[in-house]
Amino acid sequence: MSELHDDAPQLTHFREGVPRMVDVTDKRATRRSATAQAWIRLPAEARTALLAGGNPKGDPLDVARLAGLAGSKRTADLVLLCHPIPVTGAEMEITLEEAGIRVRATVHTNAPTGVEMEALTAVMVAALNVYDMLKAASKAIEITGVRLLSKTGGKSGDYAVAPDSTGMPEGTGA
Amino acid sequence: MSELHDDAPQLTHFREGVPRMVDVTDKRATRRSATAQAWIRLPAEARTALLAGGNPKGDPLDVARLAGLAGSKRTADLVLLCHPIPVTGAEMEITLEEAGIRVRATVHTNAPTGVEMEALTAVMVAALNVYDMLKAASKAIEITGVRLLSKTGGKSGDYAVAPDSTGMPEGTGA
Amino acid sequence: MSELHDDAPQLTHFREGVPRMVDVTDKRATRRSATAQAWIRLPAEARTALLAGGNPKGDPLDVARLAGLAGSKRTADLVLLCHPIPVTGAEMEITLEEAGIRVRATVHTNAPTGVEMEALTAVMVAALNVYDMLKAASKAIEITGVRLLSKTGGKSGDYAVAPDSTGMPEGTGA
Amino acid sequence: MSELHDDAPQLTHFREGVPRMVDVTDKRATRRSATAQAWIRLPAEARTALLAGGNPKGDPLDVARLAGLAGSKRTADLVLLCHPIPVTGAEMEITLEEAGIRVRATVHTNAPTGVEMEALTAVMVAALNVYDMLKAASKAIEITGVRLLSKTGGKSGDYAVAPDSTGMPEGTGA
Amino acid sequence: MSELHDDAPQLTHFREGVPRMVDVTDKRATRRSATAQAWIRLPAEARTALLAGGNPKGDPLDVARLAGLAGSKRTADLVLLCHPIPVTGAEMEITLEEAGIRVRATVHTNAPTGVEMEALTAVMVAALNVYDMLKAASKAIEITGVRLLSKTGGKSGDYAVAPDSTGMPEGTGA
Amino acid sequence: MSELHDDAPQLTHFREGVPRMVDVTDKRATRRSATAQAWIRLPAEARTALLAGGNPKGDPLDVARLAGLAGSKRTADLVLLCHPIPVTGAEMEITLEEAGIRVRATVHTNAPTGVEMEALTAVMVAALNVYDMLKAASKAIEITGVRLLSKTGGKSGDYAVAPDSTGMPEGTGA
Repeated sequence: MSELHDDAPQLTHFREGVPRMVDVTDKRATRRSATAQAWIRLPAEARTALLAGGNPKGDPLDVARLAGLAGSKRTADLVLLCHPIPVTGAEMEITLEEAGIRVRATVHTNAPTGVEMEALTAVMVAALNVYDMLKAASKAIEITGVRLLSKTGGKSGDYAVAPDSTGMPEGTGA
Repeated sequence: MSELHDDAPQLTHFREGVPRMVDVTDKRATRRSATAQAWIRLPAEARTALLAGGNPKGDPLDVARLAGLAGSKRTADLVLLCHPIPVTGAEMEITLEEAGIRVRATVHTNAPTGVEMEALTAVMVAALNVYDMLKAASKAIEITGVRLLSKTGGKSGDYAVAPDSTGMPEGTGA
Repeated sequence: MSELHDDAPQLTHFREGVPRMVDVTDKRATRRSATAQAWIRLPAEARTALLAGGNPKGDPLDVARLAGLAGSKRTADLVLLCHPIPVTGAEMEITLEEAGIRVRATVHTNAPTGVEMEALTAVMVAALNVYDMLKAASKAIEITGVRLLSKTGGKSGDYAVAPDSTGMPEGTGA
Repeated sequence: MSELHDDAPQLTHFREGVPRMVDVTDKRATRRSATAQAWIRLPAEARTALLAGGNPKGDPLDVARLAGLAGSKRTADLVLLCHPIPVTGAEMEITLEEAGIRVRATVHTNAPTGVEMEALTAVMVAALNVYDMLKAASKAIEITGVRLLSKTGGKSGDYAVAPDSTGMPEGTGA
Repeated sequence: MSELHDDAPQLTHFREGVPRMVDVTDKRATRRSATAQAWIRLPAEARTALLAGGNPKGDPLDVARLAGLAGSKRTADLVLLCHPIPVTGAEMEITLEEAGIRVRATVHTNAPTGVEMEALTAVMVAALNVYDMLKAASKAIEITGVRLLSKTGGKSGDYAVAPDSTGMPEGTGA
Repeated sequence: MSELHDDAPQLTHFREGVPRMVDVTDKRATRRSATAQAWIRLPAEARTALLAGGNPKGDPLDVARLAGLAGSKRTADLVLLCHPIPVTGAEMEITLEEAGIRVRATVHTNAPTGVEMEALTAVMVAALNVYDMLKAASKAIEITGVRLLSKTGGKSGDYAVAPDSTGMPEGTGA
């Protein structure tokens, strides 16, 4: 990595180049929320299989919703330098759209740091579960557009993407 | 879901609409491998922060690589209907390209089912770790193009995408 | 399910039929305790084996007690929509009675929600451990009467069953 | 414990009174299955709440079914002296009967030891999840009749209870 | 154990001889820190292998540092009677000295109990990871001198060993 | 690290400097065992407290023994590049000697790689549990002499230290 900028922002997870878990001991616990989104691009066979599997007792999207909710509680297990955060609320919205499956998670906490990672983990875990259930139908399913839609609380302030920018990314691997 | 196709393929994770863990008890353990990929789209500030953080003792990409390797062992914890599989080998390749960060994981097993989910979990967990370390620099980082590149072993046969189709998806949320 | 009652109480874990983790972010952390109980019905062979195994260094009931204490810390891993709660105290009482083995757990927390699930998980995990150690002696061991004995703290108020109602249920599968 | 019998069967989990994880290294991996059952006794308010909550997208029994399937993979985390076993298949059947909720789990493996504990853990975890979702409606829910219904495979031979003995135990705590 | 002292201090984890998780519900959450240390004694072959493996992208000591940081979050999973504590900060320092590898971890929390166990777990897990990566080079690696260097916060007061007493213990198994 | 030796052995966990989980997919599963040991140096107050706590129902050494057995199943969670291995047997021996507490674990598996790390993890976890229970009595407890005593099975051959070399290391931090 030769493009070093001397005045670039320091990464907070590193001190003099050594990774650490940032010390937030003295920060006050406050209400924080974050919403993340992922899209699942479905080849035709996968869409057909999903629709065929749809029924009141075991829709794949219902499985994914629960997996995502439960997955939000695993964030600190997966993200090595992430603080363990008590999730105090979580909702997921998974819908089949024309473009693909839209996965959204909103996570709340009362903690000294934010829950962006918990919301992102929730949508990723939900998307992985959808993938697992549909992978026999198509090997070309793609998870895409995983990003933060909004956050509130914390000293870095609120954040939200433009509401009309949340559609599924058009491009695919090429 | 009104588009039901009567002759559509049944989802293997469901029997008469009820989810289950598919019975693979009688399938033979054989060598199986899978390679998955994810891309991380970096806004300029995030790229600058990453480069500024680069040094021999704690590159964020090194952290992510280890997180991904360790994450592959968590797959059955996250994917509710997934069989626990003994990972018998895993490699990760995380590189900073002009387009963004490319994350690849190859996972091996000797088991009655495949390791696609383990490879996908590895790249997702690695990407989440990169996101975590760079999120202070930009809230607009995006994980995209998460998909299977190839698999070998198992009765469903080998699979590989075209080598020239593995670039970062162009499109972004809009 | 055809017996739908329109004016029935809504389940708090669901909003318009969609499961979620209830948002307790704004509830105040207060002292809460809960006591749960389970009984283990022992066929004669299992009782004999248990008594034969009794000795200072490795009584099965001692193993179960520790497993239950440790198990209380796993509740949010097992109960998908349950908030992660910091257990701040736990005691177990496991006694061999004439009727069978009585397992009791009391769990404390300082949190915005109660610890009923943690106490129930503790007795269940303890009972499973007893079962595991005695299952070679009898396949007809039964865990029964798993319920909440009392709780204190929280806005729903205190609760306690009648002290003379805590004996082992008489009936068995028939 | 004064009723010591000198010629009583030794507990396999103990050697000279010291607990251990039994050495099964030299036993052959073979197909093994086990079915376990639990009942959930529902006070009237809990039954009403369950029925009111019933709808295609989030039935509490669907949540419990998934939790049980996932819970079977946690057995060795909870049962201290239990071997880690690769679950190679699992099914759950959770039905609302007149007497209460019947929870059944069948678990399969290809391993040197049996999966009784995995099946019992699955029904217990499922029952705990039902309890969690209904506990706001009634504090008097009771989990009862947790036991093994049948097992196949392994050197100790097959086992099954009489089919007409699987109803909900009549008695309750008194 | 025949040397019983009647006036000896009671172990807090036991009440009348029965283990429990001590009730700290009413203790106030305050800032607490702890620093622990371990040494790894390296036979010549292991030192040679470590130095040969040293390079910017994958130094074994970098792997161990991350493993230790992540390991601190696992303490309550490993230490049966330990309260789950939210780690709010952690740093590790792993250096190759002439005597061997020195591993230090400092962990912070805002909790009603201390983080000594979290700091000790971090150094132990880091040391185990070093061992794992070097074990092919020598089977005689030894982890030694694992102890608390200092702690601050909490009612038992601050504690620190003498700064000149932190060298690697001289003796080895004999 | 300037002492680079060009002909030094390569670390198997790294390929061209990049960490990986070594591919053992094609190695045959065979019986493998390993025995590890740790010592706990007890200041006088800690020894007194331990002896005072000794009683049939809850000896701290009994707690530690179970924690070690259970801990052996967590190895792949803690050691980032370690393969998940099915522990097929484990025994622990924890004894109070004049010099201190001796902790020994023997772990067995039927797997393509060895169980040295599982045995070392078991003794470390057991020692951490002893430390936790005695830390109120003394802050100067030290865990020392953690090493492999013997291993059998696998292509690297059998290994054992000299039987008269297993005493507690004499030296302490200075």
